Amino acid sequence: MTERSTGGHDTSANMTGPTIPSNGHSLEPIFHPRGIAVIGASSTKNAGGGGMISGFLGSLIELDYQAEHGLYPVNPKVDEIEGLRCYPSLLETPDPVDHVISQVPAKIVPMLIDQCIEKGVRSLHLFTAGFAETGDPDLVAQEAELIKKLTDAGIRAIGPNCMGLYVPSERVSFMNSFPAESGNVFLLSQSGANAGDIIQGLSKRGVRFSKGVSFGNGADVKAHHLLDYAAGDPETEVVVGYMEGVQEGRLFFDALKRCAHAKPTVILKGGIHAAGARAANSHTGSLAGSIQIFEAACRQAGAMRAETMDELHDLIVTLTTGAKDVTGTGVGLVTGGGGNAVLASDAIATAGLDVPPMPRATIDELREFIPIAGTSVNNPIDTNLRGEEDRRRTLQIVAGADPIDVVFTNALDSHNRDPKIDALPREQRIEHAENNARNEANLLADLQTETGTPFVALTRSRDTSDIATKAAIAYANAAYRRGVATFDSAPRAARSIGQILKWRSRREGLPNLF
Amino acid sequence: MTERSTGGHDTSANMTGPTIPSNGHSLEPIFHPRGIAVIGASSTKNAGGGGMISGFLGSLIELDYQAEHGLYPVNPKVDEIEGLRCYPSLLETPDPVDHVISQVPAKIVPMLIDQCIEKGVRSLHLFTAGFAETGDPDLVAQEAELIKKLTDAGIRAIGPNCMGLYVPSERVSFMNSFPAESGNVFLLSQSGANAGDIIQGLSKRGVRFSKGVSFGNGADVKAHHLLDYAAGDPETEVVVGYMEGVQEGRLFFDALKRCAHAKPTVILKGGIHAAGARAANSHTGSLAGSIQIFEAACRQAGAMRAETMDELHDLIVTLTTGAKDVTGTGVGLVTGGGGNAVLASDAIATAGLDVPPMPRATIDELREFIPIAGTSVNNPIDTNLRGEEDRRRTLQIVAGADPIDVVFTNALDSHNRDPKIDALPREQRIEHAENNARNEANLLADLQTETGTPFVALTRSRDTSDIATKAAIAYANAAYRRGVATFDSAPRAARSIGQILKWRSRREGLPNLF
Repeated sequence: MTERSTGGHDTSANMTGPTIPSNGHSLEPIFHPRGIAVIGASSTKNAGGGGMISGFLGSLIELDYQAEHGLYPVNPKVDEIEGLRCYPSLLETPDPVDHVISQVPAKIVPMLIDQCIEKGVRSLHLFTAGFAETGDPDLVAQEAELIKKLTDAGIRAIGPNCMGLYVPSERVSFMNSFPAESGNVFLLSQSGANAGDIIQGLSKRGVRFSKGVSFGNGADVKAHHLLDYAAGDPETEVVVGYMEGVQEGRLFFDALKRCAHAKPTVILKGGIHAAGARAANSHTGSLAGSIQIFEAACRQAGAMRAETMDELHDLIVTLTTGAKDVTGTGVGLVTGGGGNAVLASDAIATAGLDVPPMPRATIDELREFIPIAGTSVNNPIDTNLRGEEDRRRTLQIVAGADPIDVVFTNALDSHNRDPKIDALPREQRIEHAENNARNEANLLADLQTETGTPFVALTRSRDTSDIATKAAIAYANAAYRRGVATFDSAPRAARSIGQILKWRSRREGLPNLF
Repeated sequence: MTERSTGGHDTSANMTGPTIPSNGHSLEPIFHPRGIAVIGASSTKNAGGGGMISGFLGSLIELDYQAEHGLYPVNPKVDEIEGLRCYPSLLETPDPVDHVISQVPAKIVPMLIDQCIEKGVRSLHLFTAGFAETGDPDLVAQEAELIKKLTDAGIRAIGPNCMGLYVPSERVSFMNSFPAESGNVFLLSQSGANAGDIIQGLSKRGVRFSKGVSFGNGADVKAHHLLDYAAGDPETEVVVGYMEGVQEGRLFFDALKRCAHAKPTVILKGGIHAAGARAANSHTGSLAGSIQIFEAACRQAGAMRAETMDELHDLIVTLTTGAKDVTGTGVGLVTGGGGNAVLASDAIATAGLDVPPMPRATIDELREFIPIAGTSVNNPIDTNLRGEEDRRRTLQIVAGADPIDVVFTNALDSHNRDPKIDALPREQRIEHAENNARNEANLLADLQTETGTPFVALTRSRDTSDIATKAAIAYANAAYRRGVATFDSAPRAARSIGQILKWRSRREGLPNLF
């Protein structure tokens, strides 16, 4: 790793206003649009979204894009949407309009492209589907022709068949409830749904993004352009991609190598089996190649391949917290529940890590205040202790033990254990649970700082109430901000840390610990 | 399978009152206690449990055990707990007391055992820990001596170091929020926490239990006794076990073989790696053997081995619904979101199933009402259609296609999509979401009945609000009652069904489809 922050993300890079961090890359302007027009914007309310306007317009309004730039819905049948004047065509919108989002049917796109050229826009995002991904030779040819026309006019195209741009520092978003706050992770994805899964899923665990691009068919802007951009982007520290097919293989591999050399880079490849490849072909028109070749290319380029979406999420959390700095395989497992700890220990070992026995001195130190019946102090540690001071002392002793390289422990161990809280009104119970969660996250963060041993919090709980869920999200965000990773379960944490250890041993010439 | 219901569980076996289904097994009486005394019962309220009394007494009160039999808290310091008279010692409780639960420290147990003998009880459940599992030779010897004393007096012991009995038909429970309703799954577990995970986790997916036994150290009642009992229990159709160590290996293997011959039997083994084995040893004093030997024993006995807790949950859902009757590997995948479908297809293929292309006739039939842009009808099916009638028609056509053996589709596809609902008060929104969920579950159940093709519902959702969680639980319960399995995700469904197909091919001489 050329740069390694001690965890959390750097919010100082949250740029709004005139100063744009730029690496002079030709794609830079598409991430800083002065004025956006949404063609085919509708005034339909989003279902289940708290009365939000649906589609791209709603997402832009949610991040308040119109506070700093012109936001122009285009729809000849409507005069106004959510207080924004609605225009009958792109040509009638005020200047400047740098970026155009097309929600119109494919047959209208040729006319829209003529208008984009006339208007002098910089980029066109084609949400519109029904081109090359259909496999229909006429539509494949039409897509190529339209993209050529745009390219000749100096307009970059994103898509077709994609969700486009997420740039929180510029208040640009393509899905409801994406964070308004910027971060240090760059996302490129051929799939809009998977981009949404990555951004929404990871944001619940505290991760924030520098930029996200869902690029669909990749008719113009392709993975290799985006990897190239991300490698030099000063806002980006970690890069994550979801790919279905590789376009222009040589260029892709070279860009992946440059990017992975500059920054930790994780790629999830869809279409690795015949069934998935056929799905990818009809989804983004991608011809998925052999996964063995892709795996080898990732390895040679120094990138990591995630095998599943969960694994991708976990790797990004690991790479952006203190968990990335784990230097060995020794896990101190401090949890409740003997049988759970047995299964967790098995899973940790399956992931190539270990739950080593404790030295005699550590056992004696723990036995000073942990009773014998129903407890274990020889790792896994199962103390049955609930008081904060005993918990802190236990974690501190375990973190300091010689064979321990990382401590796994339950988040929210004492969450909401005060029966008086149950009597409070719902909103107050939520507030109490969230505050309590933040305090517990800070306890772990303090211990991580104090002991120098990375801590990992496990959030899985039998309690699926919304209060518990909100508390878990508050916990994850508070912990992440201070560089502490949270995972659903010990097996997932172990697997992710094991992968990072392997990757670092290849990349940094560390001894292979497995 | 000697018996195979078409799905759901048979609630007619819910026996309360005098008629006890009995196989004449010597363990039968412990499942029908007339009178329970809880020694060391406390009046402490449970944290986070809505003011419930903590411990075993609270769980028994929750299922209203005292409505039919005597429930006697024993604690010399308290006069009354929750309206129940509290007794200073076991000897002062009224007759009959068949079952005694010990929550007292280990040093008091010898005296309690003398009292149990004097009182003439049938069974003693030792929640009390601090015996053989500590590894201390004196405590190991003491455990053996105490158990011998009980055995000589004709009293069965459960434990020590365990949670004991769950018999919903007799209103006996050991943890809060276990279902009051009986079902057809028998659980044996060396771990109380894992027993809780299995019962609570599976009950959210609709599964109900005939009996559950957490037996800890297994000093008297052991896995082989319980397997033997379950094999002949008329209330039990499927058997599931969590084991750490095998006691009396030959007897265990013979009992497993008899049980698996009579009923589908799933075992999860903890302590398969050195780290887990060490944890198991300090947890229940178990000496974990080689997992290869255990795996071979399961296979030879005709039982299934679950590798993780999630896998165990999924196998039990599969075995008790129409999903167990899948006859081939062809999955029809009807979901939204192209990129998700690509990853799901890959995972289905990884599990040994397939997402086969659709025959020309099926494609034509679907294309009659599914537009081209942004959709796919060649499996995975991604229709973007939301109306119930189009959804029904799509699912029906896919289920009827020749290469399709099972249909996977999203639960709650149109959940809460009416924006008018958002304006309602919280309780009404919950009610609406739950009713909607039940209707959608019935749609799938109707289609399963009508087409004869098993359906599987996928519940994973980005929406983690409590309304969505409640709706998902309502969906799972309604679907399960009618024999439709729900899984978190396509990969988990595929893995579980793949395992069942393999197991059946071994067990029933079906052709091996892999």
